[in-house]
Amino acid sequence: MGDSVKYLLGEDRIPKAWYNLVADLPEPPPPPLHPGTGKPIGPDDLAPIFPMAVIAQEVSTERWIEIPDPVRETYRLWRPSPLIRARRLEQALDTPAKIFFKYEGVSPAGSHKPNTAVAQAFYNKQEGVKRLSTETGAGQWGSSLAFAGALFGLEVEVYMVKVSYQQKPYRRALMETYGARCIPSPSPLTASGRAILEKFPDSTGSLGIAISEAVEVAAQRDDTKYALGSVLNHVLLHQTVIGEEAMLQMADADAEPDVVIGCAGGGSNFAGLAFPYLREKLAGRSRARVVAVEPASCPTMTQGRYAYDFGDTGHLTPLVKMHTLGSSFVPPGFHAGGLRYHGMAPLVSHVLHLGLIEAKAYAQTECFAAAVQLARAEGIVPAPESSHAVKAAVDEALRCKREGKSETILFNLSGHGHFDMQAYTDYFSGNLKDVPFDRAALERALAELPVVA
Amino acid sequence: MGDSVKYLLGEDRIPKAWYNLVADLPEPPPPPLHPGTGKPIGPDDLAPIFPMAVIAQEVSTERWIEIPDPVRETYRLWRPSPLIRARRLEQALDTPAKIFFKYEGVSPAGSHKPNTAVAQAFYNKQEGVKRLSTETGAGQWGSSLAFAGALFGLEVEVYMVKVSYQQKPYRRALMETYGARCIPSPSPLTASGRAILEKFPDSTGSLGIAISEAVEVAAQRDDTKYALGSVLNHVLLHQTVIGEEAMLQMADADAEPDVVIGCAGGGSNFAGLAFPYLREKLAGRSRARVVAVEPASCPTMTQGRYAYDFGDTGHLTPLVKMHTLGSSFVPPGFHAGGLRYHGMAPLVSHVLHLGLIEAKAYAQTECFAAAVQLARAEGIVPAPESSHAVKAAVDEALRCKREGKSETILFNLSGHGHFDMQAYTDYFSGNLKDVPFDRAALERALAELPVVA
Repeated sequence: MGDSVKYLLGEDRIPKAWYNLVADLPEPPPPPLHPGTGKPIGPDDLAPIFPMAVIAQEVSTERWIEIPDPVRETYRLWRPSPLIRARRLEQALDTPAKIFFKYEGVSPAGSHKPNTAVAQAFYNKQEGVKRLSTETGAGQWGSSLAFAGALFGLEVEVYMVKVSYQQKPYRRALMETYGARCIPSPSPLTASGRAILEKFPDSTGSLGIAISEAVEVAAQRDDTKYALGSVLNHVLLHQTVIGEEAMLQMADADAEPDVVIGCAGGGSNFAGLAFPYLREKLAGRSRARVVAVEPASCPTMTQGRYAYDFGDTGHLTPLVKMHTLGSSFVPPGFHAGGLRYHGMAPLVSHVLHLGLIEAKAYAQTECFAAAVQLARAEGIVPAPESSHAVKAAVDEALRCKREGKSETILFNLSGHGHFDMQAYTDYFSGNLKDVPFDRAALERALAELPVVA
Repeated sequence: MGDSVKYLLGEDRIPKAWYNLVADLPEPPPPPLHPGTGKPIGPDDLAPIFPMAVIAQEVSTERWIEIPDPVRETYRLWRPSPLIRARRLEQALDTPAKIFFKYEGVSPAGSHKPNTAVAQAFYNKQEGVKRLSTETGAGQWGSSLAFAGALFGLEVEVYMVKVSYQQKPYRRALMETYGARCIPSPSPLTASGRAILEKFPDSTGSLGIAISEAVEVAAQRDDTKYALGSVLNHVLLHQTVIGEEAMLQMADADAEPDVVIGCAGGGSNFAGLAFPYLREKLAGRSRARVVAVEPASCPTMTQGRYAYDFGDTGHLTPLVKMHTLGSSFVPPGFHAGGLRYHGMAPLVSHVLHLGLIEAKAYAQTECFAAAVQLARAEGIVPAPESSHAVKAAVDEALRCKREGKSETILFNLSGHGHFDMQAYTDYFSGNLKDVPFDRAALERALAELPVVA
């Protein structure tokens, strides 16, 4: 038997500030542009849908941004999250590598998402907002915001992609348990929803439509703001508690990572672990390779173009420079719904463009195989999204075995799969197929990218 | 905003020994009897289905039983579990009471069950057993044993009540992820299963039938033993890590409980928290009232008789003296499947008989209401079973409010409800009804109790 080790931290060591990588970048990230004017957007453009404190963070170049006390207090419900030395997995792989993972599944909603949901709920509450609107696909984000809303006394309205609303009743039940209102999208409650329903009465929805509905509701009601669960700078910022804690715990374990790994859909859990390590790397204090992992069927970073594009399919958002498959690219259905996004966080795209990180893509069945290996060794059943990071870590460990190297691997296990067990059933029954990447569809979508002067 | 507090312990403070209440009882519990001879059973009677180390613990009168190193090492995957001061819940209830709960949902399988599953897997492995058979109703126990089997390299065969097998695919997927074989019961694989299927081809199964199948398989195969998830002394013993840790954490919090609460189906999570406190109470070092909570529709302790009865409906087990509704009593279907048992652990029954503990019964809708209150305050969604303990704690806190007392309440939150969200959906949709207790059925079942000289 191996003896996996859990590194805990006292609550007094929850970070007191979020880390803003923008302060340390060798060149600043390209600004978001107004889709009408083509000029950089300012705070006023965002004010109808976000609270001022969040907008200030979105554009901040300060290195450290203090975590407000009530947010830190709330983090204490589950933070610091454990860092685990996965010795049982190492033994199962018979590798000389040391494998560590940071486990974010201990949060009440079961993933890293509450790190930002709680912060966003706090700032909105502070500015007198009564209600938050948002969209959710697989449901991880919607349930996290529902949880945060319950704690801070905010109503939460979640537009849930209709097919997920029907297929993921457990996630919906979780949102309702936290007191949120969950609405299948497209809905008759918004103009955007009604427009779709008129044309396509049987539409099963898309994240793009759900975003449009949630943004519309926030823009129209004075007491309502919009909250986003990934992609934007302030979201990535809030997630850096993951990496800051991990550094303290790695020091407790007397270990230094050679490889730092996270899965990336919108990019927030990856950035949360990776950005503090990029700071160390830029300062010459870390030798770690930093690897972002994406699904082979939605390969934004490995197959997409680094270009200005819309964040949504409805073209309501500003233009942001990012790795994108084109906003009209529709990824095939697969089980890691949280990674099913046509773009990537602009900051993650920027550091990839600068060569500070690497990107890798894996097919879903090989990721589930790695997830099952982890579950049988360490007991934790990963979310389908997180299984991509597990697969990359296993691959690095097997490389170490081939090369006879005892490198130290650190990955982010961003959430558990308790609400996604149907995916495991499909995997075991052989009903889970890898979807080949549709290159022709990519070419068509890239041809439609907006032209930016 | 309140500020709930998490009391963690270092892994070095995981208890080194389990506590055996039998050593401190004012009178010994009545022995189990052989159903044929009516005489106390001995180790030889149990040897075909349990390993010797487990049998020794079942009959031990030693106060402390050392936890083997590999079991303690495995506990480190999730133990020590947190103790939480639920200040947000206190504020929501506006009570002067202090509410603490021990949270066992952090285990990989999501409940307290792995505390004993890991120990049983270890002892079986040590004695050369290759395969464990067991039954499961709702699936908490089956998935915990599947997890333990994966860690110790044992095959696990779970006979799952057919109706649960069909209605709880997520629990089944979890067992399969851990590598266990999950068989709907009644099955054609055993004589007991075939006998039922011949008479009732459409049988949806029962825990009684599933026990018969699992025991039969263990008795017939040399390389296979049987594992039970509650009721027996050794199971309760393994759960005392909960109470031992809680005491250290309550000391860290500078708090002493006035009331200690656990839900009780078979009795093991209740005993795990309560028995160490009973030791302190018997020694005059604690003033705590100790309360076991059961469902009003299966009220073993509050409506049953303290008498010798069979542990299963098939009458394969020894006769044990316990609070029972009669082994032929069929509890109505309700959502806390883990509390749907006609009897109660003999040791729990004994201390209730001795007046050392109190028993209370609650209907399921009031328990769900309390569970939702906890979820919205503390973020954790309780398992339907655990919601009974939440309800009792809320009730005590409201009594303190009425009486103007700032008592300290400690309850065991034995598991999360991630795999039981359908129950919450039913609760919110109003489809969850309280089933009135069937007193006539109780009278009929009690009339059939075995006659013991």
